[in-house]
Amino acid sequence: MKINSEFKILGFDSPYEDADIVVFGAPFDGTVSFRPGSRFGPSAIRNESYGIETYSPYQDKDMTDLKGHDLGDLDLPFGDTQQVLRDIGDCARRIVRDQKKFIMLGGEHLVTLPAVEAVLEAFPDLCIIHLDAHTDLRDDYLGVKLSHATVIRRVWEKVGDNRIWQYGIRSGEREEFQWARQHTFLTPFVLDGVEKAIQEIGRRPVYLTIDLDVLDPSAFPGTGTPEHGGVTFRELMNFLVKLTPLDIKAADLVELAPHYDHSGISTAAACKLLRELALIL
Amino acid sequence: MKINSEFKILGFDSPYEDADIVVFGAPFDGTVSFRPGSRFGPSAIRNESYGIETYSPYQDKDMTDLKGHDLGDLDLPFGDTQQVLRDIGDCARRIVRDQKKFIMLGGEHLVTLPAVEAVLEAFPDLCIIHLDAHTDLRDDYLGVKLSHATVIRRVWEKVGDNRIWQYGIRSGEREEFQWARQHTFLTPFVLDGVEKAIQEIGRRPVYLTIDLDVLDPSAFPGTGTPEHGGVTFRELMNFLVKLTPLDIKAADLVELAPHYDHSGISTAAACKLLRELALIL
Amino acid sequence: MKINSEFKILGFDSPYEDADIVVFGAPFDGTVSFRPGSRFGPSAIRNESYGIETYSPYQDKDMTDLKGHDLGDLDLPFGDTQQVLRDIGDCARRIVRDQKKFIMLGGEHLVTLPAVEAVLEAFPDLCIIHLDAHTDLRDDYLGVKLSHATVIRRVWEKVGDNRIWQYGIRSGEREEFQWARQHTFLTPFVLDGVEKAIQEIGRRPVYLTIDLDVLDPSAFPGTGTPEHGGVTFRELMNFLVKLTPLDIKAADLVELAPHYDHSGISTAAACKLLRELALIL
Amino acid sequence: MKINSEFKILGFDSPYEDADIVVFGAPFDGTVSFRPGSRFGPSAIRNESYGIETYSPYQDKDMTDLKGHDLGDLDLPFGDTQQVLRDIGDCARRIVRDQKKFIMLGGEHLVTLPAVEAVLEAFPDLCIIHLDAHTDLRDDYLGVKLSHATVIRRVWEKVGDNRIWQYGIRSGEREEFQWARQHTFLTPFVLDGVEKAIQEIGRRPVYLTIDLDVLDPSAFPGTGTPEHGGVTFRELMNFLVKLTPLDIKAADLVELAPHYDHSGISTAAACKLLRELALIL
Amino acid sequence: MKINSEFKILGFDSPYEDADIVVFGAPFDGTVSFRPGSRFGPSAIRNESYGIETYSPYQDKDMTDLKGHDLGDLDLPFGDTQQVLRDIGDCARRIVRDQKKFIMLGGEHLVTLPAVEAVLEAFPDLCIIHLDAHTDLRDDYLGVKLSHATVIRRVWEKVGDNRIWQYGIRSGEREEFQWARQHTFLTPFVLDGVEKAIQEIGRRPVYLTIDLDVLDPSAFPGTGTPEHGGVTFRELMNFLVKLTPLDIKAADLVELAPHYDHSGISTAAACKLLRELALIL
Amino acid sequence: MKINSEFKILGFDSPYEDADIVVFGAPFDGTVSFRPGSRFGPSAIRNESYGIETYSPYQDKDMTDLKGHDLGDLDLPFGDTQQVLRDIGDCARRIVRDQKKFIMLGGEHLVTLPAVEAVLEAFPDLCIIHLDAHTDLRDDYLGVKLSHATVIRRVWEKVGDNRIWQYGIRSGEREEFQWARQHTFLTPFVLDGVEKAIQEIGRRPVYLTIDLDVLDPSAFPGTGTPEHGGVTFRELMNFLVKLTPLDIKAADLVELAPHYDHSGISTAAACKLLRELALIL
Repeated sequence: MKINSEFKILGFDSPYEDADIVVFGAPFDGTVSFRPGSRFGPSAIRNESYGIETYSPYQDKDMTDLKGHDLGDLDLPFGDTQQVLRDIGDCARRIVRDQKKFIMLGGEHLVTLPAVEAVLEAFPDLCIIHLDAHTDLRDDYLGVKLSHATVIRRVWEKVGDNRIWQYGIRSGEREEFQWARQHTFLTPFVLDGVEKAIQEIGRRPVYLTIDLDVLDPSAFPGTGTPEHGGVTFRELMNFLVKLTPLDIKAADLVELAPHYDHSGISTAAACKLLRELALIL
Repeated sequence: MKINSEFKILGFDSPYEDADIVVFGAPFDGTVSFRPGSRFGPSAIRNESYGIETYSPYQDKDMTDLKGHDLGDLDLPFGDTQQVLRDIGDCARRIVRDQKKFIMLGGEHLVTLPAVEAVLEAFPDLCIIHLDAHTDLRDDYLGVKLSHATVIRRVWEKVGDNRIWQYGIRSGEREEFQWARQHTFLTPFVLDGVEKAIQEIGRRPVYLTIDLDVLDPSAFPGTGTPEHGGVTFRELMNFLVKLTPLDIKAADLVELAPHYDHSGISTAAACKLLRELALIL
Repeated sequence: MKINSEFKILGFDSPYEDADIVVFGAPFDGTVSFRPGSRFGPSAIRNESYGIETYSPYQDKDMTDLKGHDLGDLDLPFGDTQQVLRDIGDCARRIVRDQKKFIMLGGEHLVTLPAVEAVLEAFPDLCIIHLDAHTDLRDDYLGVKLSHATVIRRVWEKVGDNRIWQYGIRSGEREEFQWARQHTFLTPFVLDGVEKAIQEIGRRPVYLTIDLDVLDPSAFPGTGTPEHGGVTFRELMNFLVKLTPLDIKAADLVELAPHYDHSGISTAAACKLLRELALIL
Repeated sequence: MKINSEFKILGFDSPYEDADIVVFGAPFDGTVSFRPGSRFGPSAIRNESYGIETYSPYQDKDMTDLKGHDLGDLDLPFGDTQQVLRDIGDCARRIVRDQKKFIMLGGEHLVTLPAVEAVLEAFPDLCIIHLDAHTDLRDDYLGVKLSHATVIRRVWEKVGDNRIWQYGIRSGEREEFQWARQHTFLTPFVLDGVEKAIQEIGRRPVYLTIDLDVLDPSAFPGTGTPEHGGVTFRELMNFLVKLTPLDIKAADLVELAPHYDHSGISTAAACKLLRELALIL
Repeated sequence: MKINSEFKILGFDSPYEDADIVVFGAPFDGTVSFRPGSRFGPSAIRNESYGIETYSPYQDKDMTDLKGHDLGDLDLPFGDTQQVLRDIGDCARRIVRDQKKFIMLGGEHLVTLPAVEAVLEAFPDLCIIHLDAHTDLRDDYLGVKLSHATVIRRVWEKVGDNRIWQYGIRSGEREEFQWARQHTFLTPFVLDGVEKAIQEIGRRPVYLTIDLDVLDPSAFPGTGTPEHGGVTFRELMNFLVKLTPLDIKAADLVELAPHYDHSGISTAAACKLLRELALIL
Repeated sequence: MKINSEFKILGFDSPYEDADIVVFGAPFDGTVSFRPGSRFGPSAIRNESYGIETYSPYQDKDMTDLKGHDLGDLDLPFGDTQQVLRDIGDCARRIVRDQKKFIMLGGEHLVTLPAVEAVLEAFPDLCIIHLDAHTDLRDDYLGVKLSHATVIRRVWEKVGDNRIWQYGIRSGEREEFQWARQHTFLTPFVLDGVEKAIQEIGRRPVYLTIDLDVLDPSAFPGTGTPEHGGVTFRELMNFLVKLTPLDIKAADLVELAPHYDHSGISTAAACKLLRELALIL
């Protein structure tokens, strides 16, 4: 008789103290204007992660070789965006202070802001790698400054010019694309050219934020704003494996909204990417 | 060749100037902690309303006999709850000022607060009839004061004791039920005893707020927090028809979250109730 | 090793020659203006019927005691309504000529017209019992005479006044309800008073047509035009059992549109009603 | 900052040692011939239980007043039915030995067999109260003795005649209904007459097994074999509250198959019934 | 306070008089024999179009730079195919007469026939570019001449040999493929070789008809007859951008059946293609 | 009037005696630990096969040119895995004895074991071509030897080293991949290099087993364990057409679980592959 009473994400079953990598959920989608539901992302990943293997044939590594801890999900006060961001920042800061790496599971993309801030405090020369279908570079969205559609602009205000590399972008306002030319390195549509970025970043610390809608909707329908013409799973996997030389301090996977995908393939994609991310970090 | 280019809710096709009753949507669900999606309520009703008849055999009245106008849906800034409430209040206030009645389509239950406030300004002796599965009487919810779970408490702060009649309530904290004994008229589980309320209210103006989850989930699965043991559609219809003698100034239908009900029966219920409400007003 | 290679509806496995009751499908929904899909009704019933028992504890009878044959589904030319009706009529006529009873599975309600005509040719004093949420008494619908919304009016043109008993009706135009007062026996909302009808009909032959949307949408969401306030499954079962004394020559079950109900409970209801109908006939 | 890292079913958060009631999941559906999926029942309840309140206005009691522990879910070897039953029996036996009560969450109905056996060892005069749509009294099903369709027959072999009270039964073979007349107390269709059973049982210990398909499919579509004509949620709730005088040693809730109900109302029903059951025990 | 009361498709908000391009819906699927539902295509696009940006990074153009008008949806008499085609033709003819271009949103593919006829009257040397998974070249389908499966054959009867270029075709009867060799330019499976077609067409006017099932079902599951092995969204986008030199007078997007795709990615694809089409025209 | 009373899979309508190829269903999923439902695969294919054409433009062949028979589906005793395998083996053996080829429709992958055994008895030098996302090479799974996760290991025990060619594999335990290096020819991720295999196999008889999850989840979401990074439908089609020179004695298509894919594209893929397989055999 074997009983499962812990409900940890697959492979993240070490005690916090021993862990090198910590995963936690930030189930917030309060500023989403189109289709909400990314709040259900972390619990979907937790429930379905047991469906995948711990071994990655892509990297020939196994989750059993690393020490990961699943901290659980933050309990966030919907309706008070400022407090939500403070809570996320506190959690990220604590993990960084304990000299561990983390992978945060969103939630909407705005949750990236306090997580980046927490890592930036410890590593002031932090570089950002940003995968997304959308620029997320607006200054405000319907008059709101803190929004899933403005989050990379807010991050830019913290890190400044030439510190953000954007890939897979295929949607935004004309002004956003124009603005990006001055302030970020934006690669539209595809994931090409990361070798150059790796060289430029060098040994600087990196925060990697993956809006899962960078994937084509055929592979990842379960998201708030599906945007066709995205990258395939294979393309994304190849991209990630190339990042191995970088010193990635923390990462996030955001915008899984599992309710829009009854087949569960979006959650399966997120689980597999989480495994690969952990093995890269 | 006939072309439909207006997309008004069935029967609400008079110009605003001529209308006696105005319907508008308040597609906000930003404080919902469990399952969001009531933001899609108004558009679902608008799309599906053409599936019902204008004639009510229950009341032997026809929508073609009244003058209704569909104002459309408010464009609300997600992430800024305060501004959302101001926008709703402005819309309701304008309609009241123009001496029309309104039916507001939610959205989550919090949208009722600014609508009640707008009507209360014009009619200070306003009484509230509240149908719901939940008490909605908490003082705060996860530390947040303005929440779908606190809205009737906030309304009570405006109208005071013995001005709120609650029906169908079958969920809440122990403290909420105890608190209700002092401050509101709460009928648990069922819709019984409305005759007495009608007598007590007399000629005072009334705001009628219907959280559609007062219906049993079998009849209305498409809502954020389904709560079994609710009333049947027939029971609700009988209740509403009895309200005809009252001077109802405004009403709302809230918490339709159509995405949770692929069959569409929840939206069909809302459309039919909207017709009956309009004919009662 | 046992292999299922026939795919007959449960209990309808006698050869045609021996059968007393024949079931066939009329998978047509070409005049439906709102939500199509009743074309999938017969195949859904065929696939799911093996999920029910052959024994009815309601009637204490068993399908194994009667001789039924499943003829299969008509292959109907979509886009040519006239030909569709001819094909259905031919099939019904053949069964009547062979002195068997039939149960037809729709399809939309218009399929009832040729089936009634076929039975009427053999039994000129045929009476109609009609269960439905809708009157179906329009003279035309969007200019079209042959429509699911006009079918009982067309039937009336064949049988004349005071030959149609309607039950459960709760939707229609004002004019339809007024018209019914002169020409049919219409019981709105409920299934009450059938005892009187049984007495009036006496030994005359009967065609029983059941639009399954007479059931409340909570029990039967899988239909094109769900109309709340309907009868419960128990109420319908009680009604049907009361019909046993009548000489029912043929019956139909129409307007199951299984795609709108992923849970499958609508198809399960249809399968169970089919069993009970067969045992009544 | 508050973090949820335990994922216990709502209200079952005491340590095992202190607990009076223990809940555990038996996620097995290996003998189901029609629609599988009850293996997902326990995890669905665990995920959704936070959507309900701890307070029951039906009983005016609160989960915070009792000591419950959530043991988690058994990890069962699919494809080896005998071992599955041994594992469930071991778990139940351990809890009984520790002088605690339990509520088991299925899984298909066969999981009841080892649970009853475990309680029966400690309480040889155990009585069984069985709520179900189906008799479950076959001797074998497709040649298989250990099946969801034979489970109560297997239980009867352990406890003998006149020790099983069955309610709500509305489906089975003719032979099963006939057999029941000799060996069990079977109330078809409804939940009437429990007062007499309570009197007959007196102070004897009771095992309560609830196949959730006793509820009408309108209230509980998420099950393998939906059977119309069932009881309403209110009827079930009234029935359960009447059982309070009995000495119930253990109970189970089986046959929730959440995938067939995208609306989630079936899981919501199970969560609410779990709360009420715990408060009754 | 901002209110949305128009419900126009994104970017099509100019008055009719000023517009260069007019969009209208032809929500008809009456001849579909397999899975109906394309009647819901136009309303799905209208509801979801606000989820995309007005700016195309593919073409570096913005919808705000062109003048488009959304005429709404035709109200079509189901069950009378001939009248449906007349209504569509009247609408298209009026727009052509007013010297505007149009994009028609289907509906099934048969709606293309009257639209082509209307444009052909004004531009007798019209060429047809046809993207589809299916040949649509049958002479009749189940005896019916006017069918979604015969539409390009009917178009050919109007324009004659060597005026139709077909791409992406991967399904049909053997005879259709053979027939095509004599009468049309058919490129099976892929979208290759359009450069040659562009040269051949030269300055002649073009009607572009896109059956969206030309896309692979992975990118576009929401259609009546999904056919694997189709083109990717990127391939389609590249193809369309190449058409810019042509003088396209009108276009259509047909066979979106949104109900088969709960994730909404099919509707999102259609919305994005509509934007790109408008920017190409 | 044309009536469909046979319900055979499209193109498999010859009598058994005349048939060269026989198709039958093995609807078993009893050892699946993650998401069951492949038991519904055969009936889904049977229902939907009429949606495809008999002609393959890929091979320029037509189903009407070959003689196929649809035997129906085995009626399997759930809960008794050993008996299930015996029944499948009996069916396969009978077909082989009658010197016909077969295509078996699963069901989970374990059904391949008795089918291979049956063919192996007649053709002792049988080679296996195995397409899958998973290695299926475990020695046991949760202690169970006969499991969908061990099936190719069990097959290997029958045929020995260097007789199994595996393609598209991208998931498994580290040990499985290591084991494969000694015992099978495993091509990870892709379908490359089949030309070499064809040469090596030469004129030896072949059993071809296709776990449909070898396809990427974007093209085939309806399966128990979706695994991203798979092959496209075009890649699979190209692979299959290359196999034409081989002497394939039997084949299977397993792991279609249609309930997880409401869009139906997975079933459509299986139907199309069945046609192509039949034309290759």
